[in-house]
Amino acid sequence: MALPKQSEDFPAWYQAVVKGAELAEPSLVRGTMVIRPYGFAIWERIQQAVDRRIKETGHQNLYFPMLIPAKLLEKEAEHVEGFAPEVAVVTHAGGEKLEEPLIIRPTSETIIWDTYARWIQSYRDLPLLYNQWANVVRWELRPRLFLRTTEFLWQEGHTAHETSEEAMAEARTILDKVYRDAVEDDLAIPVRLGRKSASERFAGAEETFTIEALMRDGRALQSGTSHYLGQNFAKAYDVKFLGREGKEEYAWASSWGVSTRLVGALIMAHGDDAGLRLPPALAPIQVVIVPIYRSDEEREAVNGALWPLVDALHAAGVRVFTDDREEHRPGYKFNEWELKGVPVRLELGPKDVAKAEVVLYRRDLREKSAVPLEGIAEHVLEVLDSVQAELFAQALAFRESRTFRPATYEELKALIQDPGGFVEGLWCGRPACEDKVKADTKATIRTLTLDPVTVEGTCIVCGEPATELAVWAQAY
Amino acid sequence: MALPKQSEDFPAWYQAVVKGAELAEPSLVRGTMVIRPYGFAIWERIQQAVDRRIKETGHQNLYFPMLIPAKLLEKEAEHVEGFAPEVAVVTHAGGEKLEEPLIIRPTSETIIWDTYARWIQSYRDLPLLYNQWANVVRWELRPRLFLRTTEFLWQEGHTAHETSEEAMAEARTILDKVYRDAVEDDLAIPVRLGRKSASERFAGAEETFTIEALMRDGRALQSGTSHYLGQNFAKAYDVKFLGREGKEEYAWASSWGVSTRLVGALIMAHGDDAGLRLPPALAPIQVVIVPIYRSDEEREAVNGALWPLVDALHAAGVRVFTDDREEHRPGYKFNEWELKGVPVRLELGPKDVAKAEVVLYRRDLREKSAVPLEGIAEHVLEVLDSVQAELFAQALAFRESRTFRPATYEELKALIQDPGGFVEGLWCGRPACEDKVKADTKATIRTLTLDPVTVEGTCIVCGEPATELAVWAQAY
Repeated sequence: MALPKQSEDFPAWYQAVVKGAELAEPSLVRGTMVIRPYGFAIWERIQQAVDRRIKETGHQNLYFPMLIPAKLLEKEAEHVEGFAPEVAVVTHAGGEKLEEPLIIRPTSETIIWDTYARWIQSYRDLPLLYNQWANVVRWELRPRLFLRTTEFLWQEGHTAHETSEEAMAEARTILDKVYRDAVEDDLAIPVRLGRKSASERFAGAEETFTIEALMRDGRALQSGTSHYLGQNFAKAYDVKFLGREGKEEYAWASSWGVSTRLVGALIMAHGDDAGLRLPPALAPIQVVIVPIYRSDEEREAVNGALWPLVDALHAAGVRVFTDDREEHRPGYKFNEWELKGVPVRLELGPKDVAKAEVVLYRRDLREKSAVPLEGIAEHVLEVLDSVQAELFAQALAFRESRTFRPATYEELKALIQDPGGFVEGLWCGRPACEDKVKADTKATIRTLTLDPVTVEGTCIVCGEPATELAVWAQAY
Repeated sequence: MALPKQSEDFPAWYQAVVKGAELAEPSLVRGTMVIRPYGFAIWERIQQAVDRRIKETGHQNLYFPMLIPAKLLEKEAEHVEGFAPEVAVVTHAGGEKLEEPLIIRPTSETIIWDTYARWIQSYRDLPLLYNQWANVVRWELRPRLFLRTTEFLWQEGHTAHETSEEAMAEARTILDKVYRDAVEDDLAIPVRLGRKSASERFAGAEETFTIEALMRDGRALQSGTSHYLGQNFAKAYDVKFLGREGKEEYAWASSWGVSTRLVGALIMAHGDDAGLRLPPALAPIQVVIVPIYRSDEEREAVNGALWPLVDALHAAGVRVFTDDREEHRPGYKFNEWELKGVPVRLELGPKDVAKAEVVLYRRDLREKSAVPLEGIAEHVLEVLDSVQAELFAQALAFRESRTFRPATYEELKALIQDPGGFVEGLWCGRPACEDKVKADTKATIRTLTLDPVTVEGTCIVCGEPATELAVWAQAY
């Protein structure tokens, strides 16, 4: 189970962790994956973290069909251009050729806005603040487990509003109060919030906002996006309402999503050469107990202390698993749970029992200490909080050490490639300069400032007057 | 919003409730539906009720891809015969014609057992106790919202075992400890457990077990099924393991599922001429408060008592909603919340406030009473428990009043058609008699006894010696 080192081959390390920790594996159809139970348990907790915040901010869940008449996609010009090349098409069903082909949703704006046209008649019907958890399909030529898969699981929110201001405020609320909050607090990953440049916008959006996280190889991962759609979809699907002034108006829209890609973020933001490191808030198993004995007598002594220990942790609400497999030695188990990123390991042997202690190992710091069994549950709860904070602090410190503000274009190019990270620079706003950086370094603009700001200075690429502060990075 | 009467036109009543209570509506593609927020909130609670029990009985969730190579379906002969006519086929993706067509899963035995072949090597790898929550597609020519839709949401469990006995015990555990328990305790619907006859078995199963509920029109609804698959799928997908005796053996299987159809069960088992009646365990809103006032002064008096009331209910964990919409009169609101099946309504007017009381209306009994505001939360919790028990008791009493044991075939035919219900009779076990009942009455065998029993007597259809005790009913 030896992993490649992160520093030597990060992609190989990633693949080995996904496989070794039993998170996922490729399936038969190109680009699809099976999410295995341990990986899915992590995703379920991410879902809960996001879903809770979606509901707390006043949204309701619903469900739209996965199959969409192909012609419906064609109504919003930019949207079809963006998605048509990626869709999967159903042409036969029930033993017959269909009269018109259906697509499997790559995202659901089309069917949802077609339906909203019937739900929205008056300003009294607004806002609609809806979300769905669903699978989507986008044909993927260069798949990578969790990061880019042909089918993925996500939530997609689709809201309709009376005014442009409300729709914009919604897109920003989701970015900050739902996505940033869940990813920073529960996934323990610090994120940069920002706007996308026009070339990186969602197909059909007027503005795309993003949370960007930095992985431990210095590459960025777009971890969630929230779009201000203006009236584009309302116009394409004819969603008009009678306004307060008695005039017909088109509704204003936002849409937003996070996906199983967040599992990839978790792996690459926290993992180390020994494997995963899971934040306690999301760890399916927070504490693993490994009992250690070499004789029946020792085993009896250990078990006498083991069950009260398990009970105390259960009672405190800790997700605990006792690894009492007979067929594996403790060292094997230690490696396995390290690889699987369990935040805390408790080792209980006869000597520990004799001293009324247990050995506590923190996965984040890779440190052992002896801890009294008396009051163990309270102590473990404190350690779990500390692990959660430590993982965030380490990721933040890493990001800060990898955030640069070069003075020249040569420096910018060099930093993007080595060591990599978030590289800030003024930009003139022209696609030509964006393209040049991409051609020279493979980096894209990850964020512009959330709100447009007045900048003083010149574009780091071309030297013309700058209009934006951009952050470049190579990205997944 | 006047509903058709159940006694006059049950299907029209059903359709009107689904629409009026804003549960779901048809979507563009034939047989698909949009599950609206109120309907989806009910489904989410059903999911939680089932998921909790699936996990408590030792199962883990995972996720398999929705797209399956068409040729994979062909490996289990009965399975392909059962499902091939219903599948939707993807022939194009990513802008190109696919080399081989893919199907959208109608159920996932095929891809799961193909994968299990890699996961199962030794008896030590068994059992696999896995479940997934997913959407499936089965082309539906006679769709009905929630009951039969082209796409539906469900959970599908797929387990692999070392022995036949274990696989059989698993199928039975799910039926009893997960499905019966969730449907009786949380949905408040009594169910009959039983075996299916060969003609009603899942395609590829050796034995199908079912929970059958009785709707208020006297028709049965198959509400969940659990299948003992023997070694059929292990043989089709070559899933062999090294057994304890050192010999290669095929694994034994079960699979089991419940779906959004359960929302239909809830509507038709409890609903009355005024609409839905939701069991408190699943009601998205358990208590609706309607403040009543005719002047600003009255409003102030009512609001003074309203917010402490809401706080007290919140603090007690009650899901409460205050309907303070200005644009509707109390009578309109009463009707709306009756239609939506909210178990308890509290009406708070100035006279009630003066007496330190509130009017409590029970949706199940349609009874009003005045209740002191002092101690209201405890009282409401008791009432909610009482509503839950009452709905179950009413459904059970109805089922008992509609369970018959006719002496002759003429009587059996008559009872099936009027008044309808579960009609018991001895059966010789021959498909010919099953077919005759179906031709004469449209009824099918809903259950045979869970375990085969020795019966004394003759087949109620043909008079030959009987081998089974069967329950017939017309069914959805």
